[in-house]
Amino acid sequence: MSVFMINSFEVPAGHADEFIAAWQPAADFLATRPGYVSTRLHRGLATDAGLRMVNVAEWAAAEQCQAAVTSAEFRSIAGRLAGYPSSPGFYSMAYEHHA
Amino acid sequence: MSVFMINSFEVPAGHADEFIAAWQPAADFLATRPGYVSTRLHRGLATDAGLRMVNVAEWAAAEQCQAAVTSAEFRSIAGRLAGYPSSPGFYSMAYEHHA
Repeated sequence: MSVFMINSFEVPAGHADEFIAAWQPAADFLATRPGYVSTRLHRGLATDAGLRMVNVAEWAAAEQCQAAVTSAEFRSIAGRLAGYPSSPGFYSMAYEHHA
Repeated sequence: MSVFMINSFEVPAGHADEFIAAWQPAADFLATRPGYVSTRLHRGLATDAGLRMVNVAEWAAAEQCQAAVTSAEFRSIAGRLAGYPSSPGFYSMAYEHHA
């Protein structure tokens, strides 16, 4: 059963493009790692205070995701993301429905 | 272009089943409304403090989602959800990739 890593990033006003430029190489790297299934980055509506970006990444197993994000290579690639407050966590799918 | 309503709920320890029992009829109702596309409820890992549930619902348009969740019928059905602190917001898809 796959797991979901959901991570919410706080991006200051005017920094959305910069955030995506920092996020893209990190996503590209993770897509090459064992256990990776998919990623979907959602962009919130911008306000004066900034915006929120929410990534929902599916992995075959939490251990595979953790191995990928704690690797030295990822830490190097994702260093530019560290400036954005984030709250990552693992989730299981509780309910799914499609029209 | 569809939109995503992402809503994060804080659920006290031991209340996960009760939350899902309250959430299910609300989800069933929304699935009947114009513009509804899909819903995915993610369940966080439980801790002593409780757990987080994150719903990602896709709608054809934000106006259709708002019409559904502000309807008297929905407010009645979803009343039991009001006790769980939540932070809803609309998002667009910024990036999507599948292995």
